[in-house]
Amino acid sequence: MRILSGIQPSGSLHIGNYFAMIKRMIEFQNDNELLCFIANYHALTTVYDASTLRSRTLDAAMDFLALGLDPDKAIFWVQSDIPEVQELAWLLSNVTGMGLLERAHSYKDKIAKGISPNHGLFAYPVLMAADILLYGCDKVPVGKDQKQHVEIARDLALRFNSTYGETFVIPEADIESTIATIPGTDGQKMSKSYGNTIDIFADEKKLRQSVMSIKTDSTPVDEPKPTDGNPLFEIYSLFLDSEGKEELRQRFETPGLRYGDVKKELFEVIWNYFSQARNNRKKYENDMQYVYDVLKKGAEKAREIASYYLDKARHNVGLDYKFTSK
Amino acid sequence: MRILSGIQPSGSLHIGNYFAMIKRMIEFQNDNELLCFIANYHALTTVYDASTLRSRTLDAAMDFLALGLDPDKAIFWVQSDIPEVQELAWLLSNVTGMGLLERAHSYKDKIAKGISPNHGLFAYPVLMAADILLYGCDKVPVGKDQKQHVEIARDLALRFNSTYGETFVIPEADIESTIATIPGTDGQKMSKSYGNTIDIFADEKKLRQSVMSIKTDSTPVDEPKPTDGNPLFEIYSLFLDSEGKEELRQRFETPGLRYGDVKKELFEVIWNYFSQARNNRKKYENDMQYVYDVLKKGAEKAREIASYYLDKARHNVGLDYKFTSK
Repeated sequence: MRILSGIQPSGSLHIGNYFAMIKRMIEFQNDNELLCFIANYHALTTVYDASTLRSRTLDAAMDFLALGLDPDKAIFWVQSDIPEVQELAWLLSNVTGMGLLERAHSYKDKIAKGISPNHGLFAYPVLMAADILLYGCDKVPVGKDQKQHVEIARDLALRFNSTYGETFVIPEADIESTIATIPGTDGQKMSKSYGNTIDIFADEKKLRQSVMSIKTDSTPVDEPKPTDGNPLFEIYSLFLDSEGKEELRQRFETPGLRYGDVKKELFEVIWNYFSQARNNRKKYENDMQYVYDVLKKGAEKAREIASYYLDKARHNVGLDYKFTSK
Repeated sequence: MRILSGIQPSGSLHIGNYFAMIKRMIEFQNDNELLCFIANYHALTTVYDASTLRSRTLDAAMDFLALGLDPDKAIFWVQSDIPEVQELAWLLSNVTGMGLLERAHSYKDKIAKGISPNHGLFAYPVLMAADILLYGCDKVPVGKDQKQHVEIARDLALRFNSTYGETFVIPEADIESTIATIPGTDGQKMSKSYGNTIDIFADEKKLRQSVMSIKTDSTPVDEPKPTDGNPLFEIYSLFLDSEGKEELRQRFETPGLRYGDVKKELFEVIWNYFSQARNNRKKYENDMQYVYDVLKKGAEKAREIASYYLDKARHNVGLDYKFTSK
């Protein structure tokens, strides 16, 4: 199965990103053909500073490699290294009804948040459809918020095929619905915009601060502690298998547990959990050429697949004006 | 001065196209740097049949070469041979306010005509802006109906430059307002959609039919004939200099003139006027390789210019993630 995943280069990754998406995504590389790209074209809809975009792009590359994305197993590249995707977006635009885009949640949401609408935001789902169709992907694992975009890609593939003849693989969204919302340090959903994240590559001091700031309730020490809706319990659980989680539950339910002690312990758990990734990342920071080479080779492999679908699309719409059926 | 002209490959050219646009456009090649492309990406917003698009693209190439576009003086290429323009369209999209596109006449007009809106039609002005800005053009000669599109290009260039730093030349529209509307055979504006055209490359029989079908009034032979608003007089005048036109006026004003005789004469005039072009076109039809070579060389020259502006734009938005200011 060919699986596609696009990564927004949006700055520091937190453990919410990791357990909701990255971990599962990277595991796909073992039993599937995983295609994974850093979506710097998409980032342009909201990032207007060149050096910010550059550093976030490279940070995303190093982060994902450090967390285990294996360039020998997966195809990993930067979106703008295959500008062909923009040509395909144009070809798709001509079978994209305006209503489809006007109904897209992501656009409506951004406008509702007061982000002044530009055409990039509006056309975003067309570019995302091009990302998916250019690589003939079968499955696109996304969060619920991105489900509609994959449906748009599916819709455009069907319309294109019926208008111009069989061209694209019809993709399917793969929604991981079993993953519960991951709470941040204040108990709300962990999100950069709430300032409640625990960052994967934070330094020791910063990580300790984040963990110690996890909001706890005022249950006296000599009473059982709640587990449901308790961010400390829920965050800790992410790092445990079902057995470990059951043990932790029993500790919480046993009077005498001190939240402060659990936080210190949790800090150690997180620090150790990501220690290999942290070491990897340092290695890459000191050897950018390796990272560039990985991305370059990834783009070459991606281009091979892209050419196949793009050539077919260009032919089916009639851009290959030299073609004669003789 | 660098001048850009985009040609819609919309099928047979008529003398209205020629005298309103083509003639003047081709003359620019003598004293300016003329860039001229066949807009097959734009055509995709309305043409959904591949072989139609292919043949119209090649017809447009042969037509313009036959009519005197000189590939040694002008740069002449097919739009889709420089797909880079689509990448630039995306970069521009992120500084394109939705309001700007919603107010575009061409979009509103097409919707008013009952053409079901697709995203290609909506995004058309962004692609057109990319066409202009990618080649650093100073001047874009257009009809009144396209004036707003050049203004949008101008607006986007200014916004891009102010958002990301100096990148693009600010283009100017060049509206030829002295050219009167050219009447068709029925006296309405000559237009393919009215079926009232006189086609440049029609065969002898077809051309004669068209000319003979020019609508005339019922002024008796022995009375002076009107000239103003008389399509026969106006069409004939296109082929005359001011002196010739004055002579024709006198002939019309002198009793005794027979419209039928004038039509036969006009047929000869038109047939001879385009005889060189017709011969050229036959030559190209029998030597498509020459046409392909011209377009290929044109694309190479166009790409050189395009690379300069595109690289600058990519750098200024931060797609060149390897760039370090060290």
